[in-house]
Amino acid sequence: MKYKMKKLPRTPFDGDAVHEECGVFGIYLPEGAAVSPAHEAYTALFALQHRGQEACGIAVCNKGVIRCHKDVGLVNDVFDEKTLESMQGNMAIGHVRYSTTGQPSRENAQPLAITHVKGNLAVAHNGNLVNASELRRKMEMGGGIFRSTSDTEALVYTIVRKRLITPSIEAAVVEAMKEIIGAYSIVVMSPRKLIAARDPRGMRPLCMGKRAEDGAVIFASESCALDALGAEFVRDIEPGEVVVVEDGNVRSIDSGIHEKTAACVFEYIYFARPDSVIDGASVEEARQEAGRYLCEEHPVEADVVIGVPDSGIPAAIGYAKYSGIPYGVGLIKNRYIGRTFIQPGQDKRERSVRLKLNALRRAVEGKRVVMVDDSIVRGTTVGRLVKLIRDAGAKEVHMRISAPPFRYPCFFGTDIPDSDQLLAHNHTVEEMREIIGVDSLGFLSVEAANKIAVGARCTFCDACFTGVYPMPVPESVEKNMFEMELSE
Amino acid sequence: MKYKMKKLPRTPFDGDAVHEECGVFGIYLPEGAAVSPAHEAYTALFALQHRGQEACGIAVCNKGVIRCHKDVGLVNDVFDEKTLESMQGNMAIGHVRYSTTGQPSRENAQPLAITHVKGNLAVAHNGNLVNASELRRKMEMGGGIFRSTSDTEALVYTIVRKRLITPSIEAAVVEAMKEIIGAYSIVVMSPRKLIAARDPRGMRPLCMGKRAEDGAVIFASESCALDALGAEFVRDIEPGEVVVVEDGNVRSIDSGIHEKTAACVFEYIYFARPDSVIDGASVEEARQEAGRYLCEEHPVEADVVIGVPDSGIPAAIGYAKYSGIPYGVGLIKNRYIGRTFIQPGQDKRERSVRLKLNALRRAVEGKRVVMVDDSIVRGTTVGRLVKLIRDAGAKEVHMRISAPPFRYPCFFGTDIPDSDQLLAHNHTVEEMREIIGVDSLGFLSVEAANKIAVGARCTFCDACFTGVYPMPVPESVEKNMFEMELSE
Amino acid sequence: MKYKMKKLPRTPFDGDAVHEECGVFGIYLPEGAAVSPAHEAYTALFALQHRGQEACGIAVCNKGVIRCHKDVGLVNDVFDEKTLESMQGNMAIGHVRYSTTGQPSRENAQPLAITHVKGNLAVAHNGNLVNASELRRKMEMGGGIFRSTSDTEALVYTIVRKRLITPSIEAAVVEAMKEIIGAYSIVVMSPRKLIAARDPRGMRPLCMGKRAEDGAVIFASESCALDALGAEFVRDIEPGEVVVVEDGNVRSIDSGIHEKTAACVFEYIYFARPDSVIDGASVEEARQEAGRYLCEEHPVEADVVIGVPDSGIPAAIGYAKYSGIPYGVGLIKNRYIGRTFIQPGQDKRERSVRLKLNALRRAVEGKRVVMVDDSIVRGTTVGRLVKLIRDAGAKEVHMRISAPPFRYPCFFGTDIPDSDQLLAHNHTVEEMREIIGVDSLGFLSVEAANKIAVGARCTFCDACFTGVYPMPVPESVEKNMFEMELSE
Amino acid sequence: MKYKMKKLPRTPFDGDAVHEECGVFGIYLPEGAAVSPAHEAYTALFALQHRGQEACGIAVCNKGVIRCHKDVGLVNDVFDEKTLESMQGNMAIGHVRYSTTGQPSRENAQPLAITHVKGNLAVAHNGNLVNASELRRKMEMGGGIFRSTSDTEALVYTIVRKRLITPSIEAAVVEAMKEIIGAYSIVVMSPRKLIAARDPRGMRPLCMGKRAEDGAVIFASESCALDALGAEFVRDIEPGEVVVVEDGNVRSIDSGIHEKTAACVFEYIYFARPDSVIDGASVEEARQEAGRYLCEEHPVEADVVIGVPDSGIPAAIGYAKYSGIPYGVGLIKNRYIGRTFIQPGQDKRERSVRLKLNALRRAVEGKRVVMVDDSIVRGTTVGRLVKLIRDAGAKEVHMRISAPPFRYPCFFGTDIPDSDQLLAHNHTVEEMREIIGVDSLGFLSVEAANKIAVGARCTFCDACFTGVYPMPVPESVEKNMFEMELSE
Repeated sequence: MKYKMKKLPRTPFDGDAVHEECGVFGIYLPEGAAVSPAHEAYTALFALQHRGQEACGIAVCNKGVIRCHKDVGLVNDVFDEKTLESMQGNMAIGHVRYSTTGQPSRENAQPLAITHVKGNLAVAHNGNLVNASELRRKMEMGGGIFRSTSDTEALVYTIVRKRLITPSIEAAVVEAMKEIIGAYSIVVMSPRKLIAARDPRGMRPLCMGKRAEDGAVIFASESCALDALGAEFVRDIEPGEVVVVEDGNVRSIDSGIHEKTAACVFEYIYFARPDSVIDGASVEEARQEAGRYLCEEHPVEADVVIGVPDSGIPAAIGYAKYSGIPYGVGLIKNRYIGRTFIQPGQDKRERSVRLKLNALRRAVEGKRVVMVDDSIVRGTTVGRLVKLIRDAGAKEVHMRISAPPFRYPCFFGTDIPDSDQLLAHNHTVEEMREIIGVDSLGFLSVEAANKIAVGARCTFCDACFTGVYPMPVPESVEKNMFEMELSE
Repeated sequence: MKYKMKKLPRTPFDGDAVHEECGVFGIYLPEGAAVSPAHEAYTALFALQHRGQEACGIAVCNKGVIRCHKDVGLVNDVFDEKTLESMQGNMAIGHVRYSTTGQPSRENAQPLAITHVKGNLAVAHNGNLVNASELRRKMEMGGGIFRSTSDTEALVYTIVRKRLITPSIEAAVVEAMKEIIGAYSIVVMSPRKLIAARDPRGMRPLCMGKRAEDGAVIFASESCALDALGAEFVRDIEPGEVVVVEDGNVRSIDSGIHEKTAACVFEYIYFARPDSVIDGASVEEARQEAGRYLCEEHPVEADVVIGVPDSGIPAAIGYAKYSGIPYGVGLIKNRYIGRTFIQPGQDKRERSVRLKLNALRRAVEGKRVVMVDDSIVRGTTVGRLVKLIRDAGAKEVHMRISAPPFRYPCFFGTDIPDSDQLLAHNHTVEEMREIIGVDSLGFLSVEAANKIAVGARCTFCDACFTGVYPMPVPESVEKNMFEMELSE
Repeated sequence: MKYKMKKLPRTPFDGDAVHEECGVFGIYLPEGAAVSPAHEAYTALFALQHRGQEACGIAVCNKGVIRCHKDVGLVNDVFDEKTLESMQGNMAIGHVRYSTTGQPSRENAQPLAITHVKGNLAVAHNGNLVNASELRRKMEMGGGIFRSTSDTEALVYTIVRKRLITPSIEAAVVEAMKEIIGAYSIVVMSPRKLIAARDPRGMRPLCMGKRAEDGAVIFASESCALDALGAEFVRDIEPGEVVVVEDGNVRSIDSGIHEKTAACVFEYIYFARPDSVIDGASVEEARQEAGRYLCEEHPVEADVVIGVPDSGIPAAIGYAKYSGIPYGVGLIKNRYIGRTFIQPGQDKRERSVRLKLNALRRAVEGKRVVMVDDSIVRGTTVGRLVKLIRDAGAKEVHMRISAPPFRYPCFFGTDIPDSDQLLAHNHTVEEMREIIGVDSLGFLSVEAANKIAVGARCTFCDACFTGVYPMPVPESVEKNMFEMELSE
Repeated sequence: MKYKMKKLPRTPFDGDAVHEECGVFGIYLPEGAAVSPAHEAYTALFALQHRGQEACGIAVCNKGVIRCHKDVGLVNDVFDEKTLESMQGNMAIGHVRYSTTGQPSRENAQPLAITHVKGNLAVAHNGNLVNASELRRKMEMGGGIFRSTSDTEALVYTIVRKRLITPSIEAAVVEAMKEIIGAYSIVVMSPRKLIAARDPRGMRPLCMGKRAEDGAVIFASESCALDALGAEFVRDIEPGEVVVVEDGNVRSIDSGIHEKTAACVFEYIYFARPDSVIDGASVEEARQEAGRYLCEEHPVEADVVIGVPDSGIPAAIGYAKYSGIPYGVGLIKNRYIGRTFIQPGQDKRERSVRLKLNALRRAVEGKRVVMVDDSIVRGTTVGRLVKLIRDAGAKEVHMRISAPPFRYPCFFGTDIPDSDQLLAHNHTVEEMREIIGVDSLGFLSVEAANKIAVGARCTFCDACFTGVYPMPVPESVEKNMFEMELSE
C-alpha cells in the first residue's frame, strides 16, 4: 500500500536538500581483545564522518559501567588521546550527526546514555520517526521530561517503558518497534549486550561485519566502516530484524513486523560513500549507472563530460563511458575551505564558490561541455559554476542532474529548505535551464532512479520525488514544536 | 527532634572536607529594561564563583522560549560576548557548581532545562536531597529515564509530575516540597514566572534583592551577588517559603512545611564570601568571632598572630584583636597558581605548597607565632606550612583551627574524603599536634561554632561535628549508585 | 653550463620527497578600493594553501605602517575576523609555509617584517638560497644577529645592506639579486611600494594579475590565486625581473642577471594545483601528459586504469585516454583524516593507510589493474595500497609512477628523507617491483619529464633525477647548521 | 651628580602609573641534576608572575643547543607539560613581561634567542635603556635589521658587536655595559655559560641564590623565586657587577663602571612581592613603614584603618599599628575577575569596580574610616571606592596614599598615562580631595619614601616624584618611534 499526504505541508518541494542524516556504529570485542573499543569506534567514525559533521560521540561499556563522551564538532575535534585512553571496556557504540540549519546543539548529540529502572543504556540512532511527537506527548502525560528535541529521546523512552513489562532489553526493543513508526537504524548497548535493529522497511542502511583476527562483531551504517577496521562484511541487517550480541554470540530475532521495503534511494545518489555496498548494491556503481541512465534519457553531442566534485564525479564518468564522449577534469576543488571561511563584506557567495571550485580552462576552452551534478537547490551555486565554465571558454554547457527534482518533504531524515527558496519550486525545467544559463538541462527520471542500485535486494522509497509515501505521514510539518532551544 | 545515624557509613569522619557546594541566581527584569538578563546573570555568577568552579550555566527566557548555555569551566571560560548577546529575554537563572572528586561532568552542569507536558522549565539547585535515590527509583518504575547522576533531575521530575495534578507551576513546586527531603535552595524559571524556594530547615542560603533604578527582582545564594549588580538586599527567603515573580509582581507562598531551622554553619566558617550577610549574620564578623572564641578557648602567650590566606585571615584578625597579640602577615599567597600547575617529577606536593604560600621571614623570625586556619584534612599541607614558618625562624608555632574537627558525613551538600585519608581519623588532638609538629593545637568547640553567626535568626546544623542530624538520614552512603559515568 | 656535485652528500637519493615548498602573495589596491587587502590576502592564501600547511602570515601596509600577523597553522587557524578587521591598509603580502620534519617553528613563519635605517619592510619568500650560509656568515662578521634559521633572514639582511648604498628599495633588491644565489620568488612591501622579483633561472613560479573591477595589482606563486580573487592573469614574472608597483603604476626592471632557465619540473608533477598555469603550461595538462608518456614508455595489457588520489588521478586519466583502457575509480580517499589522527597501539601505519584510502571492490575485482601514482618513497604506503587492491580481487596490478626516481638532493627547496629510508636507494626497479608486490613497475623517463609541460616557455631543472645542477652547489648538505632551535 | 630634564616631555606627570616592569630568571644545574631546568624556570616564573602578565618565555640550553619557547599570556597559558618535557638541558633563563598599553606583541616577548658569529645566545632583560634609539640607529647604519621595538634587541646587538672584539661573552657583556645607558638587570645564556649583570646604579633588582640539595645556581629579579625553588638567598648582584657561572663555578667580574646607586623606590611601594627582600630590605616591612610614616605625616582621629586590596593592605596594617586605630577588613576582592570580563553596554567602569571590590558594611558602618591605597591615577577608581565605603555607612573617609604623587616621567621602566588623564595633573591635593570626595587626603612625603626600605644598602631614584634624574635623559619621549607594529 502507498500513502499520499492529505494536505501538502507548506508547499511542494523540489530542488536540493539539506539532509539530516546520521551514522551509527557498534562493536563487541571478545574477551582478551588487544584493542580498545573506543579506539575502534573512533576509527570507524572517521570512516562514517561524511554522514554527519555537526556532532559525534562514543559510549563504551566496561563491566557494566557505561561511559559516554560526545560534543559538537568533527571526530577529530571531539576526541583526543587522553579521552580515548580513559574509555576502556569490551563494547562501544558511536554516532556522527549531520549539520542542519540552526546552531549545533550539544543536547542533541548522540549516543544518548541514560539510567533506568533496570540499569543503564546507551543508544545511537539514524533516521526519523513519523510519530515522535505523539510518543513524546504520551510520555509527558505521565510526567516524562525531555532534555532534547531529537526523536531519539522519545525512542529511548519507549524502549525503557517496554523494558518494564518485558524480560530482556532485546524484547523491549522488539516491543518498542511495534510502537515507533518511521525510519530507524539503531544500535543499543546495555551492560552485557550489544543490539542492532532496523526498521521494517529498511529505510536506513545498517550492516554487520566480523573481524577474523580477533572475532570482533561490528555494526555500522555503511560497509566502509568495516573496511576501515579490517573487518569483513557479513550481511545487511534485515528490515524488521533485531540482532543481539551476548557473551560473544550473535542471535537474530525477527520482530515480526514486516512491510514492503522502502530503502532510501538518496543513499546511493548522495549520502553514502562510494566505496560502500548497501543492500547488495555498490554505491559507486549506482552513481555511474545514474550517469548511464542520464545519458540514455538526455543524450547530447559534446566534446567533454565533467563532474562537479565530489559527488558529481562518478555519474560524469558513467555518462562519459556510455556516451563515448571523453571524460575530463573541468573543476578543481579546494580541499582547505572549511566551514569557517571569513567572507569579506561584499559579493560573499560569489567569491565563496570561486574559492571552493575553480575551472580548468584547458579542459573546457572552446568545447561543448556536459557538466554533471547530483542536485539543484537554489540554483545560485550551479549558476555560478556555469558562469565559471563559460568564462573559461566553454562553447556550450549541458547540465545533467543525477537525481529527479524532488518535490515533496521527507519525513524520514531529510531536512529541506523552504520551498520558496528552491529554484524548482515555481519553475519548469525549461525555465530552470534559462535561469542557470545552460544550453540544455536534464534530470534523471524517477524510473531510472529506482533502477540504479544494481543488484539491490529491496524496493525503494521515492516519496521526495513522487509524494507517494510508504506509510501515513503527518498532515503538517512541525518544525519547532517545542519552545525551547537547548543549546548547552 | 534530632536524628542519629543507625549505622555509621564507612567510618566516622573528621578533618577537612571537600565541599559539594553550588550557587544559584535568578533575575526578573521589568518590561523595557535597558540591560540583558544574561549579562546580569554573568556578572552575578562572577560574584558567586567561589561557591563552585567546576561548571556553570545560564538559562534565559525570551517570550516563553528558554535558551540555556552551560559547560564545565569558570564563568570566564564558559561565556563569551557572542554567547551572551545571543541570550536575550526578560528573565534568567544561573548556576555555579563546585568541583568534586572525579572528572567534571557536563551532564551534571546546571541549570537543567527541560520540556514537559505543560511547556518548558529551567531549574538551578543548591543542596542535596536525602531521598533522591528513592524519588529516582519511583520515577524509573514509571518508565522515567535519567541522563545525569545529580539530585536535580529527580527534583525536576518531581515538580513536573506534580504539575500534572496542580493548576500552576508554583503549586507544583509546593507539592514537590512535600515529597523531597533534604537541603535545597532552588530557582525555577517557567515561560512567565520566576520562582525561588528554600527548604523548610533553611539549610542552604537564599536571599532576595531589588534594584531601585529599574525595579529588577533578584534571587541569589548570597547577598554579595546583589551588591555586584547594584541591587539592594530585601530579605532572606524564609525556610519553607516559595516566592513567585509574575508580571513584575512578587508574591510569597507559605508551603506549610515547617521544621526547626538547621542552617549550615560551614557557610560562615568556610563557604560563603566574607562580604555576604546570611540570615542576618555577617560572614566576616562570624569568622572574626570564631577567632575570638578560639582565643577564649585556647589562649596562648605569643608575639604575633598570622592567618593562612585566604580563609584563615579573618579568624586570625579576631584572635589578635581579642588576645591583644599583634596581627601580622606571615604568609604570602601567590595569586597566579591555578589548577593546572605542572608538577615536576619529584616532591610535587611539597613544592606546590611552597609555590602557593611563602613565609614572610621578617614577620615570624624569632617569634612565638599563632597560626590560624579553618580546617585540617590530611594534615600534610598544614604540616608543610608549619615547616615553612619554622624554617623562617619562628620560635614556637601554635595552631588554631576556626572549626571543630568534623567526624560525621554530611548528607546535605558536603563531600568528604574517605576517613582513612583524614588525619583526625585515628588520632587524638595531642597526636595530631605531634604529627603536624606544632607547640600547641586548638580547635573551635561545637558550642562556640553555634554562636559565631552573631544576629542570625536561625538555629544551625552541626551534624558533621556531632552526628546528630536534623532529619533521618540513609543508613549508608552510596557513592556511585548508578553504574554509569555520564561525562559528555 | 651545467654543474655536478663534486662530492655526493651523504648518499645519492631517490624516491619520494618531502618538499619544503612555500607560496607567496602580494596585492596593491588603488585608492578608494572597497575591499581590505588583508581579506584579499586571506582568500588568496586559501587558494595557495596546498603549497604550505605548517605556517602562514599576512602583512599589511597602512599609510607607511606595517602590521604583520603570522603563526603556525592553516590559514583557517591563524586568522579570525577580528584579526583581519584590524589589518587595514592599501597593500598586503602573504605567505604559506610547508611542513618539514621537526616541530613547526613560529620564528620561521613569514612574512618577515623588520625595521631598518630607512624605515620598515616586509618580505615573503619562496625558494632556497645556495649561499645562505655564506651570506649569513658575512652579516654575522659585521655583528649581525639572526633570530631564525630560514634563508629569508639572510635575504632580507642583504637587501637592507644594499639599501644603504642605493637610492631606492627596488634598486636594493636588484643589487641583492647580484649576491644571492639560488631559487627565489619574493614579494617585498615597503611603506609605499609593492615589489615582486624572481631569480634569474625562474626556478620557482611567480605571476602577476590585475582585477578589472577595481584595478588591483596582484602577485602570486600560482595563477589559481588570481582566479580565487576574480582577477585576470596578466603574465609570469620573467626570470631575473623585478616588478614595482608605486602610486598604482606598474614598472618592470631588468636586473641584468640572466641565466639559462631552470624551472622546477616537480611543480608540474606534484607541487602546483592542477588548475594553475605556470610559465605558459597547464599543470593538469602536464600531469595527463605524464600519463600519456608513461603509457608510451611502459604499455601494458589491462582492464582498468586507476589513480591514487589526489595527485595520481590526472596521470591515470592521461594513461587511460592514450591506452584506450577504461579509466576507473579504484580508491576512495577519506577527506576527514587530518594530521591528528590518533593511532591505536598496534599496526598503526597499516590502519592509517586503510582509513585514508579504501579500495572499490567492484572497480577492480577480477581485473588487470594499472595503478598510477606520482612517487615512491619508502615503499611501505604503496605496498599497502597494492595489498588493498589485491585483497579487493585485482588479478594483476601494474604500477606506474608519473615521475623518474629521484636520486640527488635538491638545494632549491626540496627536503628529502635520508637515503637509507628510501626504497629506491639500494634497489633496482626490478627489486622494487618485487618488494611492493606488483606485476610490473614503470617510472617516467627523465626525457619525458622534460616534455610534459606543454607550451612552457622555459627549460627545466631535473637535477634531482640526474645530479646535473644549474649552478654550483655546496659540497655537503648541512642540515642543522646552527645549533639553535628557535621554536617560539 | 643629578640631572634634570631640559625640556619637559609633553607635560609633567603625576598620579598613578602603568608600569612597564619585567621579571628575569636564570638557573645553572650541576651535572646529573635530577630536575629539568625548564620545570625550574616554570616554577620560578610563577613566583615572578606579578612582575609581568603580558607575555613570558623560557630558553634552555642543552649541550650548546638553545631552545626557546615564548608567547603572550600567563605562564599557565604559554606552557604545558609537553612543551616543558621537550626542553631538556642544564641551563635555563626565563622572563615575564608586563602588560603595557596597546595590544600585546609576541615579537617583544623574551627571552630573545639569536645566533651570531660565535654561536648562539639567549637574553632576558628587565629595565629600560635611555640610549636605545641611539644604539639602534647605529646598528641600522651598519645594515642591522630589527624585528621588535624593544630595547632588548639593541642591547643584544651591542653585546654581539662587542663579542667580535673581545675574547669571551662575559667580556662582551662588560664592554656592552660601557655603551648602554639606563636601567637593566639581565641574564645571558651562551652555550656553556650563564651570566647575570646589573646596571651600575642598581636601578632594577637582581639576586643570586644556591640550592643546597643539588648545588644549582640561580639568578632572579626577586628573592621570592628562590624560596619557590627551595633555594637559599646568597646575595644581591652588585650594581655594575657581572656574575658568570661556568662549569659549575661562580665568578664575579667588576665591570669597573660605578655610579651612585639609584634603586627604584617603587619596587618597595608597588612592584615587588611583599615576601621578597631587595638590597637588604624587606618589601612587606617597607610597606608597613610607609604606613607608619603616613600616620606620622597625616594623623587623623578615626575608628578603623582599612587597606585597598592587595597592595594597600600592608601600609594599612602599618598605619593601624602606629596609630593605635584598629585594623579592619573593609573591602573584599573578587579573585575570579580576570582580564576578560565582558561588560554590559552601560556604566561599565562603575560595575567593574563594584564587581572587583565590595565593601564590608559591618566593618565601616557608622565609623570614621582611614582608607590606604598605594596610588591615585585618574581618580575615578578611587572615587568609586570612596562611594562604596560611604554607601556602606562610613561617617568619614580619610584617604592615605603610601607614595608621593609622581609628577615626572620615568625613563627606566615605567610607562605613564598621558598627563591630561591624571587627576593630579592640574589639581592641588585639596582639589583632589574634593574631587574624590574624601574628608582628608594625605600622600607620603618624598623624604619618607626614601626611608621606608629599612636596612637597604643603597640610595634611591625618586625622579618620578622630583624630576631629578640620576643620569641625563632624552629631551622628549618618543613613543612610537618606528612606524611598524610588530604583532605576530
